[in-house]
Amino acid sequence: MGPMPPLPAVIACLTDFGTQDAFVGITKGVIARTAPTARLLDLTHEIPSGDVRQASVRLWQAAPHMPKGTIFLAVVDPGVGTSRRAVALAWKQAWAVGPDNGVFTHMIDLFGTPQAVELNAPPEPRLRATFHGRDIFAPAAAALAAGASIGSLGHPIDDLALLPPERLEVLPSGGIQGEVLFADHFGNLITSIGVLEDTGSDLSLVPWVRAGRPTRVPRAGLAAVLPDGRSIPLRATFAEAPPGEPLAYIGSDGLLEVGVNQGRAADTLSIPPGTLIRLESRG
Amino acid sequence: MGPMPPLPAVIACLTDFGTQDAFVGITKGVIARTAPTARLLDLTHEIPSGDVRQASVRLWQAAPHMPKGTIFLAVVDPGVGTSRRAVALAWKQAWAVGPDNGVFTHMIDLFGTPQAVELNAPPEPRLRATFHGRDIFAPAAAALAAGASIGSLGHPIDDLALLPPERLEVLPSGGIQGEVLFADHFGNLITSIGVLEDTGSDLSLVPWVRAGRPTRVPRAGLAAVLPDGRSIPLRATFAEAPPGEPLAYIGSDGLLEVGVNQGRAADTLSIPPGTLIRLESRG
Amino acid sequence: MGPMPPLPAVIACLTDFGTQDAFVGITKGVIARTAPTARLLDLTHEIPSGDVRQASVRLWQAAPHMPKGTIFLAVVDPGVGTSRRAVALAWKQAWAVGPDNGVFTHMIDLFGTPQAVELNAPPEPRLRATFHGRDIFAPAAAALAAGASIGSLGHPIDDLALLPPERLEVLPSGGIQGEVLFADHFGNLITSIGVLEDTGSDLSLVPWVRAGRPTRVPRAGLAAVLPDGRSIPLRATFAEAPPGEPLAYIGSDGLLEVGVNQGRAADTLSIPPGTLIRLESRG
Repeated sequence: MGPMPPLPAVIACLTDFGTQDAFVGITKGVIARTAPTARLLDLTHEIPSGDVRQASVRLWQAAPHMPKGTIFLAVVDPGVGTSRRAVALAWKQAWAVGPDNGVFTHMIDLFGTPQAVELNAPPEPRLRATFHGRDIFAPAAAALAAGASIGSLGHPIDDLALLPPERLEVLPSGGIQGEVLFADHFGNLITSIGVLEDTGSDLSLVPWVRAGRPTRVPRAGLAAVLPDGRSIPLRATFAEAPPGEPLAYIGSDGLLEVGVNQGRAADTLSIPPGTLIRLESRG
Repeated sequence: MGPMPPLPAVIACLTDFGTQDAFVGITKGVIARTAPTARLLDLTHEIPSGDVRQASVRLWQAAPHMPKGTIFLAVVDPGVGTSRRAVALAWKQAWAVGPDNGVFTHMIDLFGTPQAVELNAPPEPRLRATFHGRDIFAPAAAALAAGASIGSLGHPIDDLALLPPERLEVLPSGGIQGEVLFADHFGNLITSIGVLEDTGSDLSLVPWVRAGRPTRVPRAGLAAVLPDGRSIPLRATFAEAPPGEPLAYIGSDGLLEVGVNQGRAADTLSIPPGTLIRLESRG
Repeated sequence: MGPMPPLPAVIACLTDFGTQDAFVGITKGVIARTAPTARLLDLTHEIPSGDVRQASVRLWQAAPHMPKGTIFLAVVDPGVGTSRRAVALAWKQAWAVGPDNGVFTHMIDLFGTPQAVELNAPPEPRLRATFHGRDIFAPAAAALAAGASIGSLGHPIDDLALLPPERLEVLPSGGIQGEVLFADHFGNLITSIGVLEDTGSDLSLVPWVRAGRPTRVPRAGLAAVLPDGRSIPLRATFAEAPPGEPLAYIGSDGLLEVGVNQGRAADTLSIPPGTLIRLESRG
């Protein structure tokens, strides 16, 4: 149910619409018609087309930093035009609107199980259309921003779609095996290996945020090890690696990342998304 | 004349400025100086350099979905520095500011003939400059947002430049011939063939929005036919086409589009913008 | 010290974050938590990674056009994670927050020496992170937007880092030698040669904005001359050059630029950034 949104409400938008068309602008225009004072904040519109997992992870990266009461509008929707449901979610600290395809999986990891409704179908238009961002999701987000309760938008459901977990495994060595998720703008590779705490001498590793108890390993001698045997040392800062050399480090979201000092790991190492990677002692 | 804009006014911006420079930000800064509460909404800044027709069509796509009283600021202006006029337009439901080069042609199709003025020349600067978005158009849009009447911005004109019509023809068969306009972010090809109504059994086709009376054709057996004889069947949804196969469908603006299920038509079919295309019965 | 910012404050953002990740959105979310009514305005997020000089020049291009009291948030920070300082600056007409690496050099040319503080270190987080845009700079900008005094954010310093001057030289001929800085979205080449005034018959040239007294040269016969001897005539407008031909002209910021009528100079001339260029009489 959640509290009423503070006014003006913040609507944080994430899509795979790109910016060459007016798709994003049209979606915002629809919101502005119903919720003229809502503040629209772009997370990104450059999710690779239909990449629901990347969208879910990026929502998770952003969610802790948004104002309380933010409405997340996520439209990455390869199933548009099929029977997949449209949903709205409510937690104590946030709302979300989007397709029911797992795009909120990592937000649910973070915030817990939300109240959820399947959105009522909009009035039948003169022409069937496939721009649900404009016709279904934006109106629902705008309604929430204008003060509607989530219960007024649809009927309750309790079987939200969730993505399968990332491949993560605690190793007998005490380390963790995960996978490379994607590269960021600077060419750094983001992995699914989570670091809960860094005492300086020890790391508390978790198999992503979803699973089990942290495993504590000594920091000394830790390295990211690839399937082909390459070993990339864990460093505290980029500057600790010689220019042009790869390093593993703990990124700003607490995930293990692989970069190259003064370079672009995504361009110079051969580590595509999906590559298994272990963080373990080589000391 | 139109009513006073609701406060805060919405200014919807469309340019070919791109986003690597600060051109868009500077334009917005100029607006914020005069109209500090106006809400700025980006339609797109990635119109191909100087492509006035694409800009005009994209304004038409966006216009029906913007709040009443929106001020459209459109700067796609290959004639900057020549004697082309700078204009402001007013309809009952919207305003527009930009160069008089036809960029508002499709909005005029949609909203009817506007009241129009040629903008007064700004005070002579110390240096002649060619950034009219900053120096001429943004100040005019900001003045409207701040409550100025269109009549105060310039002198009335009644000979606005309009683009030549798209190539459209009603065929003896009852179908329609149009042309491919451009591709969108998902690689779908947008055509100039308009569909006014889809009863399920019949389509009401129009030669774009500008011309004549709709022609009604049975839906069964309709296909998009290319000059080289290729025939692409009309489908109700992407999922009706096998993966990797092309389909024609009615897009979210009521225009015929050509796509590929789980693919990118713009990359895999050879159908450049300007290609003639017929929608007709192959049944 | 500067006056209190007008409400709502404008925060003008410039980074090298790109837009594929949620870095910019997260930075804005952090601001919105502290300063919910601040207006966020994007200058650009596409500064080439770590290019502090280009960032500084682009801030200079934008600064004169922003509302009085704008807070410039600039995060182009190749030294993140090293001991470089984080700073806030205050002038009479603007504030700035960013790394102390010279990114405000050209704004200081424009506005004069600011009051400056080194930002207090934020509370130690559970994990050391390298996203100072989110963790250090955005909170400081938000605090200013919410009315904090610059003095409350840190301790005064008077040794701000500045970039070395551009290579500029007044020639015995009365002309000026400068360098190509970068290309804009339209493929035009921006140089470091400043033009203070254009009387029609004479130009007042300055070695960039930072140095010395203007030198006045007759306009007739002026050309941009390259190290390889190529000479590109100075024109008043693009239309004065035949289609496809290069021209030199005075850009919208008063800098000499090189373009190609109906073309892209950056793609068709071979003039990389850093190339020396002279504006002198060939009459």
